[in-house]
Amino acid sequence: MKHTKIVDVIKTDPVLQEIYVKGWVRAFRSNRFIALNDGSTINNLQCVVDFENTPEETLKQINVGAAVAIKGTLKESEGQGQKVEIEVQDIEILGKADPEEVKKTILSPKRHSLEKLREQAHLRVRTNTFSAIMRVRSKLSFAVHQYFQQNGFNYVNTPIITGSDAEGAGEMFKVTNMSLTNPAKNEDGSINFKEDFFGKETNLTVSGQLEAETYALGLGQVYTFGPTFRAENSNTSRHLAEFWMIEPEVAFCDLDGNMDLAEDFIKYVLNYILENCDDDLAFLENRLIQEDKSKPEADRAPMALRDKLKFITENNFKRVSYTEAIDILRNSKPNKKKKFNYVIEEWGADLQSEHERFLVEKHFKCPVILFDYPANIKAFYMRLNEDGKTVRAMDVLFPGIGEMVGGSQREERLDVLQAKMKELGIDEEELWWYLDTRKFGTCVHSGFGLGFERLVLFATGMGNIRDVIPYPRSPQNADF
Amino acid sequence: MKHTKIVDVIKTDPVLQEIYVKGWVRAFRSNRFIALNDGSTINNLQCVVDFENTPEETLKQINVGAAVAIKGTLKESEGQGQKVEIEVQDIEILGKADPEEVKKTILSPKRHSLEKLREQAHLRVRTNTFSAIMRVRSKLSFAVHQYFQQNGFNYVNTPIITGSDAEGAGEMFKVTNMSLTNPAKNEDGSINFKEDFFGKETNLTVSGQLEAETYALGLGQVYTFGPTFRAENSNTSRHLAEFWMIEPEVAFCDLDGNMDLAEDFIKYVLNYILENCDDDLAFLENRLIQEDKSKPEADRAPMALRDKLKFITENNFKRVSYTEAIDILRNSKPNKKKKFNYVIEEWGADLQSEHERFLVEKHFKCPVILFDYPANIKAFYMRLNEDGKTVRAMDVLFPGIGEMVGGSQREERLDVLQAKMKELGIDEEELWWYLDTRKFGTCVHSGFGLGFERLVLFATGMGNIRDVIPYPRSPQNADF
Repeated sequence: MKHTKIVDVIKTDPVLQEIYVKGWVRAFRSNRFIALNDGSTINNLQCVVDFENTPEETLKQINVGAAVAIKGTLKESEGQGQKVEIEVQDIEILGKADPEEVKKTILSPKRHSLEKLREQAHLRVRTNTFSAIMRVRSKLSFAVHQYFQQNGFNYVNTPIITGSDAEGAGEMFKVTNMSLTNPAKNEDGSINFKEDFFGKETNLTVSGQLEAETYALGLGQVYTFGPTFRAENSNTSRHLAEFWMIEPEVAFCDLDGNMDLAEDFIKYVLNYILENCDDDLAFLENRLIQEDKSKPEADRAPMALRDKLKFITENNFKRVSYTEAIDILRNSKPNKKKKFNYVIEEWGADLQSEHERFLVEKHFKCPVILFDYPANIKAFYMRLNEDGKTVRAMDVLFPGIGEMVGGSQREERLDVLQAKMKELGIDEEELWWYLDTRKFGTCVHSGFGLGFERLVLFATGMGNIRDVIPYPRSPQNADF
Repeated sequence: MKHTKIVDVIKTDPVLQEIYVKGWVRAFRSNRFIALNDGSTINNLQCVVDFENTPEETLKQINVGAAVAIKGTLKESEGQGQKVEIEVQDIEILGKADPEEVKKTILSPKRHSLEKLREQAHLRVRTNTFSAIMRVRSKLSFAVHQYFQQNGFNYVNTPIITGSDAEGAGEMFKVTNMSLTNPAKNEDGSINFKEDFFGKETNLTVSGQLEAETYALGLGQVYTFGPTFRAENSNTSRHLAEFWMIEPEVAFCDLDGNMDLAEDFIKYVLNYILENCDDDLAFLENRLIQEDKSKPEADRAPMALRDKLKFITENNFKRVSYTEAIDILRNSKPNKKKKFNYVIEEWGADLQSEHERFLVEKHFKCPVILFDYPANIKAFYMRLNEDGKTVRAMDVLFPGIGEMVGGSQREERLDVLQAKMKELGIDEEELWWYLDTRKFGTCVHSGFGLGFERLVLFATGMGNIRDVIPYPRSPQNADF
């Protein structure tokens, strides 16, 4: 007899049919009520044991964390909090869980800190909070693929190991097959990379954008969705050394089209989880409300989780030039009263999260897209405007978090691009292939990057980015 | 005016409407006929230039490789090979392509070898063959996500950088942030990994399976789809140093369920591309037929490409035990006549691709799943059978290629797993978290791994795995 998933069981009308389920015991009350979970839903299935007719030996093994198989009759529930329950006819212990051992882990039924859960990342997915986060993460990632595929984009797997280090988005990890104790060396004592696996120095990618551009200029519309890496010693709640990035790139698309795409894309994926993850989002929303109760009112979230998602999906994104934003910020109360940590003095300043949040939360009260940034605070590949000092860059700003998306129209003019690279000391020979795309049928094209974990953080209302990826990588931490 | 994608244009009934398109010139015949491609389809759009009313300067710039924007009227085509064409009213050169420079590249309109195309991997996606391959690859990857999501699986991103090296699936690349010239050392001269970014020795993952198991034992059904790495010096047409792997893992699922899943999954994804990529598959099928004409008959593909895909989707996969397969092979003609490179002498032999292909192509004439392999040629985590000498492993065998999928039911019994690890010298402390899953509510569970590029190779009929990934990584090659 095949077992039924709990997510399907709880949707079934109870007409006294026979049901077979398997899962893990989340709680066992009064030697009678098992809360059973199989990971398919946040909701536990109540299974009512007839303890008088169940062997003592079996009852003793119905412990939190144990895996069990249950046969029984699906009935309307008399208890609160669930529509159906199972009247157990037969219970089999599949895998025990020694209560003494369970006590030492986060499986034990009490409140554990998120730090503690991180130390047992292999078990935390069995908790309500983390199973909800990971189901939302999964659905969100599918929404990403579905959006792009439905809109004619091709998924491109750009390389993870790269021989190119010109992108400059951040510090890179080295990849080698040589002995670290005794690497091959040249006569002058430098490392002889010719002897390494790839015959050259190689690193882990920080972005697939440049390669994605080469593909956009052939396939038209592409997107990447893969891991990227930063070897930066940032031990914060917003940084990971290994994270997943989404990078669409579109030929024959200017910055306006790029802003349209970013807005449409974000609304689609957030709507997708609002429609497909309501149980999990409701749980996470309530979790935040409970958590906030212990905080001073000023530190509490201004919106409930699902309202915050709707704030994005139901508002038009306000498009504002960097120059206009600087004026607004310069004349703002927190700037005049020096409440910002970084006071905005003049045009050209790089915006901090506090400024971005002010624009979204206080000034415009809607998601904001800033565009046309000063050239010298942005990357070499962004298209120079006619003014000679701004580039066609854009950042999408969200409440609570600041920058969610960074993108630009790319510099398609070979001579301008070459001049910029020269100015910044970027080796043309290193990027010969990138320059080729500007030699052979170059065209206006644009794209953006979105750190997937930032989106999951926003969507789940969690506070630490290490809690929205199964096994986070950060300084001094590569466990599991 | 927004431009229309060519894939949509060629599906439009010609009622003389105005059309605006953008793309790259693939050919320009008789100063009149532009074959325009924008990457959205294998099909070029014929654009008929009124050369008498087009400036000489513009005509000169309509070269192969150039990017152009064309306004015109959509008409029924008088020529062969297309239903519609565009009568050009206005043409704008967006990006030039100097014919002298194009001549030096693979964009030049003549036959280039696949080797040559690999050297210009940034341009090869503009050829018919590679754009077709990459569109099929994209669709196939989406089919993977769609299948699992529709069946209640959660997508899990297992770590790329791993501190664990116990999986043993192959040689690993080292990841470090230290100077290779002058790494931190201990007093005894060994490397002091405490000073490295993660405070320990780290590598690139060879498989996400063990981490996926921890998630399956919480979420029930999970799958990975991410990059994996092998630092093996295999310079063959079947190996990549960096490749994408799909690894589903299911709790409460035995080997039979695992075989059902593998068969159902493979049929779904191949059916998906048969339904959604017919133009590209037809092109690739014809490409193979043309290529085969120059080969001796014995070396030609026995089936046309789409027939080969249907051979998989329309046949039941025959399930045969390893022991039975050995008997068949031992008594087979090629074995008796010593036509196999590796003659099968006795039970326990590891099967080679030639044996797997014999079973599929000659003996059973359908896809085959072999199961219950000898324990000592398989991995430590596979479930030991009652006979004490075989494990619940399975391999799915395909025509032309041999093994497509490798999987198993996992050893869920803590004591048996520990004994096996001890036997093989695998450190329990290294895998404490993996063993934890067997201590707390262990259960029967199974999964498999499928190298995505192998599947794309099969689906596209290509002969070299470096031609089915945008930027292949192999010994001495990490260009772009």
